[in-house]
Amino acid sequence: MTTAPPARAAKRGRPGYDLESLLAVAVRLFNERGYDGTSMEDLSRKLGISKSAIYHHVPSKEELLRLAVDRALDGLFATATAARARDESAVQRLEHLVRGSVLVLVDRLPFVTLLLRVRGNTKVERAALARRREFDQLITDLVAEAVRDGDLRPEFDAATVGRLLFGMVNSLVEWYRPRGGIGAEELADLVVAVAFDGLRKN
Amino acid sequence: MTTAPPARAAKRGRPGYDLESLLAVAVRLFNERGYDGTSMEDLSRKLGISKSAIYHHVPSKEELLRLAVDRALDGLFATATAARARDESAVQRLEHLVRGSVLVLVDRLPFVTLLLRVRGNTKVERAALARRREFDQLITDLVAEAVRDGDLRPEFDAATVGRLLFGMVNSLVEWYRPRGGIGAEELADLVVAVAFDGLRKN
Repeated sequence: MTTAPPARAAKRGRPGYDLESLLAVAVRLFNERGYDGTSMEDLSRKLGISKSAIYHHVPSKEELLRLAVDRALDGLFATATAARARDESAVQRLEHLVRGSVLVLVDRLPFVTLLLRVRGNTKVERAALARRREFDQLITDLVAEAVRDGDLRPEFDAATVGRLLFGMVNSLVEWYRPRGGIGAEELADLVVAVAFDGLRKN
Repeated sequence: MTTAPPARAAKRGRPGYDLESLLAVAVRLFNERGYDGTSMEDLSRKLGISKSAIYHHVPSKEELLRLAVDRALDGLFATATAARARDESAVQRLEHLVRGSVLVLVDRLPFVTLLLRVRGNTKVERAALARRREFDQLITDLVAEAVRDGDLRPEFDAATVGRLLFGMVNSLVEWYRPRGGIGAEELADLVVAVAFDGLRKN
């Protein structure tokens, strides 16, 4: 019994979901159909359990969204905190943040995918957007500090550079698939190499 | 009368829209609510004209989508064709394609935004995804050729490099706003500089 997958357990009339596995299914559905386009009814059908069984774990659809986007944001902020705590130059801390963000994206791909699609229609979405802006500001500040140190080229606007840098990082959610492609560490190396040293062979 | 905006003309019972202005409103609505989430009824309300007045211009919602995504794709393919026709090395043609793609994105921002959100549920969407894959292949081929020429660093997979490169370019639709920010040419210079030579000051 312990090895039975949740869906089979559900068919026997036993929910078989904990909050974690329920959240995973919800996030997959939100990413496929959009958060607005997914009802608790849809989720109940997909899980094969009743709505009241879902409400046993979580009080609302919005709470599922909050748990999901926080999973992404907490990972990114933990990386930012670790990067800032390093006793290194700004450019090294920025490299650390870019590398760590790639690893977070690969590790929490469905959660970050959902985060990046959030548009701000609900309180949870607005809060997520506010944290994203806070993260963007951390990046801009690091870029500006590295420029002042003379380590990055000074001719471009720090906020724009930060957006391009994380535009490249965030694009992973559109095309990176963990199985069959290159590994997370190799991918992180590639992103850092392209961003800081460029594609051109010197 | 000729200077009256379309909405006012519409209120007088005269449609006042040509296909171009109708398409612009439709694309804005598709981008706001999603293509699936927008009905011809919604579009009719937004335009302030009847559905039959819309059908006078265009036979279906899907045809509006086709016109919109083709506007984006035709711009990108025209740039690719121009880049490939240049009597230059592969790396120079790739730079030309990256620069030109940034200019197309800025010039046709709402159309490219819609294109990048297409998921493949209809015939038009599947056709758009097929053309996107064709464009991706052009990029991969150019990257591979530039690596063979010894102009780009050889240690990374060409397809992955192409995706990162255009991940950075395509991120513009998420954050670039034509008014108030940096100009299109300056932005194109920045993207090319970051991609090929990196952020680090040498």
